Amino acid sequence: MQRIFYSYDEFRDDLRYLISLIDWQFDTIVPISRGGLTIGHMLGEYYGIRDVYAINTIGYNDTQKLSTIQISHTPDLKGAKRVLIVDDIVDSGDTILEVLKHLGSLYPDVEFKVASLFYKKSAKITPNWYAKDAYEWIDFFWSEDLKDKNGTDDR
Amino acid sequence: MQRIFYSYDEFRDDLRYLISLIDWQFDTIVPISRGGLTIGHMLGEYYGIRDVYAINTIGYNDTQKLSTIQISHTPDLKGAKRVLIVDDIVDSGDTILEVLKHLGSLYPDVEFKVASLFYKKSAKITPNWYAKDAYEWIDFFWSEDLKDKNGTDDR
Repeated sequence: MQRIFYSYDEFRDDLRYLISLIDWQFDTIVPISRGGLTIGHMLGEYYGIRDVYAINTIGYNDTQKLSTIQISHTPDLKGAKRVLIVDDIVDSGDTILEVLKHLGSLYPDVEFKVASLFYKKSAKITPNWYAKDAYEWIDFFWSEDLKDKNGTDDR
Repeated sequence: MQRIFYSYDEFRDDLRYLISLIDWQFDTIVPISRGGLTIGHMLGEYYGIRDVYAINTIGYNDTQKLSTIQISHTPDLKGAKRVLIVDDIVDSGDTILEVLKHLGSLYPDVEFKVASLFYKKSAKITPNWYAKDAYEWIDFFWSEDLKDKNGTDDR
């Protein structure tokens, strides 16, 4: 599979595009840690929403090669009415489906919608809003930019 | 007070510098939401730490003009031994002091240390590691870059 480097500048432009798509008022942002953290941070700043509460997920492959998503650090959402869940990519869709099921059962009166930067057409669920289709493996700047690629430091 | 714009490129360089200073092994990262979220995300990626658990604080000024910090969404840190708390700036120091007191009383056996990008010498507490002294008001890229400054969009 091809890999593409996804720079901060592209991210910023795509986030602005994503904002232009989101036609919904929400009061709370739940980024999926870690992939959604920077998105949640910047959207929180943009919308003036301080209620940015991360949730954690880990994907496991069991012996039957079925993937299992384990959710932890579920945020307290009492007081929330409309919650935007954000992640970097909806790939298989397993993570988002599990998070929606989990939060939906805990907070049946809260409305949840999903925004992601990338979306793979083969996923089991389509986010309400996304910026780009994903065809390749994406090396996000947040995983790449701190790597010491040539053994020297800028400072 | 003068304002400086703090770009992503400066942030990335300062984060690399901060990493070069941190001479401690930790197993968990607790970013203070929202200011610490992007830092927590990128440090988590760099160190290969998935245990990135946000905590939320809000500062209030009461009638006596004393600031009060309210902490919410305290992460479950059972299993953690050494926790790095991260934030964008240690300004008065009130937030970090309150978070340290709060987490320290809940988890007396966990070791907590603090890393921030900026530090103001007048603060009541010095972070264990920080990248830069703060003299001005800092407009961080994460609050500035999505603003539609001239009414046009790049896309």
